[in-house]
Amino acid sequence: MGIRTIDWKNEKIRIVDQTKLPLKLVYLNIGSLPKLWRAIKVMQVRGAPALGAAAALGMYLGIKDYSGSDVAGFNRKLKSCAKYIGSSRPTARNLFWGIEQILNVAQTNRKQPVARIKQAILAKAKSIMQQDMAVCRKLGDCGAKLLKPGSRILTICNAGILATIDYGTALGVVYSAAAAGKQVKVYSCETRPLLQGARLSAWELSRQGVEVTMIADNTAAKLMQEGLIDAVITGADRIAANGDAANKIGTFNLAVLAKYHRIPFYIAAPKSTFDLSLKDQSEIKIELRQAAEVTTLLFKKQIAPAGARVLNPAFDITPHQLITGIITEEGLILKLTPHNIRKILKEN
Amino acid sequence: MGIRTIDWKNEKIRIVDQTKLPLKLVYLNIGSLPKLWRAIKVMQVRGAPALGAAAALGMYLGIKDYSGSDVAGFNRKLKSCAKYIGSSRPTARNLFWGIEQILNVAQTNRKQPVARIKQAILAKAKSIMQQDMAVCRKLGDCGAKLLKPGSRILTICNAGILATIDYGTALGVVYSAAAAGKQVKVYSCETRPLLQGARLSAWELSRQGVEVTMIADNTAAKLMQEGLIDAVITGADRIAANGDAANKIGTFNLAVLAKYHRIPFYIAAPKSTFDLSLKDQSEIKIELRQAAEVTTLLFKKQIAPAGARVLNPAFDITPHQLITGIITEEGLILKLTPHNIRKILKEN
Repeated sequence: MGIRTIDWKNEKIRIVDQTKLPLKLVYLNIGSLPKLWRAIKVMQVRGAPALGAAAALGMYLGIKDYSGSDVAGFNRKLKSCAKYIGSSRPTARNLFWGIEQILNVAQTNRKQPVARIKQAILAKAKSIMQQDMAVCRKLGDCGAKLLKPGSRILTICNAGILATIDYGTALGVVYSAAAAGKQVKVYSCETRPLLQGARLSAWELSRQGVEVTMIADNTAAKLMQEGLIDAVITGADRIAANGDAANKIGTFNLAVLAKYHRIPFYIAAPKSTFDLSLKDQSEIKIELRQAAEVTTLLFKKQIAPAGARVLNPAFDITPHQLITGIITEEGLILKLTPHNIRKILKEN
Repeated sequence: MGIRTIDWKNEKIRIVDQTKLPLKLVYLNIGSLPKLWRAIKVMQVRGAPALGAAAALGMYLGIKDYSGSDVAGFNRKLKSCAKYIGSSRPTARNLFWGIEQILNVAQTNRKQPVARIKQAILAKAKSIMQQDMAVCRKLGDCGAKLLKPGSRILTICNAGILATIDYGTALGVVYSAAAAGKQVKVYSCETRPLLQGARLSAWELSRQGVEVTMIADNTAAKLMQEGLIDAVITGADRIAANGDAANKIGTFNLAVLAKYHRIPFYIAAPKSTFDLSLKDQSEIKIELRQAAEVTTLLFKKQIAPAGARVLNPAFDITPHQLITGIITEEGLILKLTPHNIRKILKEN
């Protein structure tokens, strides 16, 4: 697709700095864990699948210079890296999934010398990226079957190239439909407060030649009322065992509107976003972010009176009853029950 | 309330320049019709009732220096002013209501000399302001009865002091409840693209000592889901005979969310916002505004890729079925039928 959101280059994590888009396409080379922690926190890298890769690469970054030969000490170091990376943002399941993948590799290789464990960890982090590239294409092709030629898709935030390694989940569905010659169109909610829909989705969609129209988030209901939307497709940050799905704040809003207007509402997410250990939405932790995201425009112009009270949750949760289906690399999950979700994900 | 949004001072229209808030409280003296037209267009003055007064004062501004004594010529001049002012923004009913009030006065006084007609026009424009001050308080007191002590109100845009002469419609209800000792709290949707909820409502509410919490528009659904909202109250820009109501883009969105969460949704608007000549929403004209409101942050920072397509309607329409009631100075209209609306408004 021409852009690689996250990669391992010259012993560093190379990311597209998403705070600079759409004005500049700038790459950032990350050579230390504190720098990675900050990049995740301020969303220079964001999007659940990209965070999975960032966390896995971060685990390697944290131990690659470990100089001892003591495996127990190495594992303690690895666990402290896991804790540190995991403290950056709480909601995206993939961040923790990426960490767990690495911890599992270390566990499997615990009888090996430290140098060999390091090698296995780097190989795993790289394979997570490869896997994401394949998974997104499979997921995209699965979702594309739901779309007719000319379908008009409403989306929020960015679940595209910039949220994954190089393809996308919700926008992956759009790219697969476009590749199949379906000429779909996208309406992109700008996604306040941090405007990922305007800055990132509109940017990458137009770069890929997909017709995209930007709207203020408030405009979604009117578009549906006017019959301009055929389907809503969004990504997800964490999905509970019953199908309740956390995603960017405003997603639940769109799901309610879609229900009212009888428009199908799909979540597109890889298996790694599911957290089957959580019964339902009540167990999903939602990140609250700083007031300045709302009281300013991208930390520049002040738009609120001094000392204004603010509530700024980064995510909301769409109950499974409002979700028409979840598009995954294992297939489309239409009947959202814990049993059926496990069955289609082959987690029984 | 300490702020006068619009007034007639030293032969000019004096307004609070709302594009400068919340950073600076600046008054602007408007001495010509082109300057008024621009002030309305760029929303230095906005809000349906304030626009009614602005239009009436503008009519006087347009003819006060008419030097002839020929009434027919005077009336032609008046009509060209009406047409010019009416071309500034199409949706707010009050703008046209204000113009019509002045044309009616000229008609009633058509046998009088030009100087007397001018006097009558100025008197009428001033009385429209006085009337708004009384109407808003009556409307506010009517709505306040709906609120319990501690009620948490969600609102969008600004239907407060800054949308009227000095009190407000939706926020007038809040001020009346607060004056009655009910300690209500407000959640203010920031209201992209032009952020009236952040810049204006949060500013005036905190200045009046009402607890207000700002949210990104996307957060409304989550607040309702968490049981944090007891009622939604918004203003309106034009209400059709059947109760369908145009208001700031995002209002219809909130109405659908309120319905889903079984939260009452009220419109607060004076009689002058009703357009009983329109059967229903299909006859309400919706203003489309420039793309730059969405592709930039208040015309400064660019947030969209170059050449992005944008759809930017300034208003949406909430069908009467989603409105629990309309709060007016003539009383609360609960049963939204053309007949009942006429009856309560005493328009039979």
